[in-house]
Amino acid sequence: MGVEIERKFLVNKEKWSQAIKEERSFFRQGYIVSDPERTIRVRLIDSAGFITIKGLTVGATRTEYEYPIPKEDAQQLLDNFCNSELSKIRYFITHDNKLWEVDEFLGNNEGLIVAEIELTDENEPFSLPDWVDTEVTHEKKYSNSNLAIKPYKNWNIQ
Amino acid sequence: MGVEIERKFLVNKEKWSQAIKEERSFFRQGYIVSDPERTIRVRLIDSAGFITIKGLTVGATRTEYEYPIPKEDAQQLLDNFCNSELSKIRYFITHDNKLWEVDEFLGNNEGLIVAEIELTDENEPFSLPDWVDTEVTHEKKYSNSNLAIKPYKNWNIQ
Repeated sequence: MGVEIERKFLVNKEKWSQAIKEERSFFRQGYIVSDPERTIRVRLIDSAGFITIKGLTVGATRTEYEYPIPKEDAQQLLDNFCNSELSKIRYFITHDNKLWEVDEFLGNNEGLIVAEIELTDENEPFSLPDWVDTEVTHEKKYSNSNLAIKPYKNWNIQ
Repeated sequence: MGVEIERKFLVNKEKWSQAIKEERSFFRQGYIVSDPERTIRVRLIDSAGFITIKGLTVGATRTEYEYPIPKEDAQQLLDNFCNSELSKIRYFITHDNKLWEVDEFLGNNEGLIVAEIELTDENEPFSLPDWVDTEVTHEKKYSNSNLAIKPYKNWNIQ
């Protein structure tokens, strides 16, 4: 079992376009269950498969259980067991000795760029890179499980 | 990914009590999801943890993905993520060169004993041990996910 403590921010596209990008990976992920109190996610990161069970988010903290699974299983689970999915390019950026993950969403979420920092403590101090804008940690519409069901491109459609 | 092909039978208690029992294990299992088309099961077999995803049963065949997980994770998932659970003692019996699994259910399912044989092909021939009674392969009420929700002890209660 792990505990995930993360803060989430929108990214300023202009400034982000000038940032130096280091490592990046392609993510495809889907949801077998996406209830707020428990999420079951299947992920393909490049060619590595994972299954993750997440509990209820309390503040910025969430219980998380993650296990590696064969790539072929992840593909089959995504194709046959998931109700909703999304894909994104994730960049890994070190800023002020802390790791930031910046997600450039693809498909129906194209145009949305979100940065996350994982903390070991909710009160851990950190500094913001200049390409970081508004905090959206508590805005559920930016959760990946929501973006898989209600993608960014449809947010303005009533 | 695996495919599970199994036939299921009720057990004659008198004859079963005289059978020679070999290996046995204690099973505690619960369900995060128990829809017919997809089941997510967490299991503790003695002190080994597993998470299993199962698809729709077609005939006697079911797609199954199973992964070992730490014992502590299995306990936490059973305690905090499962809506329903059951426990049983499973005996492993070799009969006519085939492996039978006999489940003596505990708790609210006490009194129920079910035998299963796993096959590699739906048409694979096999012989029945003398302690085997009626076949219940297609009776959904005997599925473990159902027994966790509607236990045997309540079957006669309207």
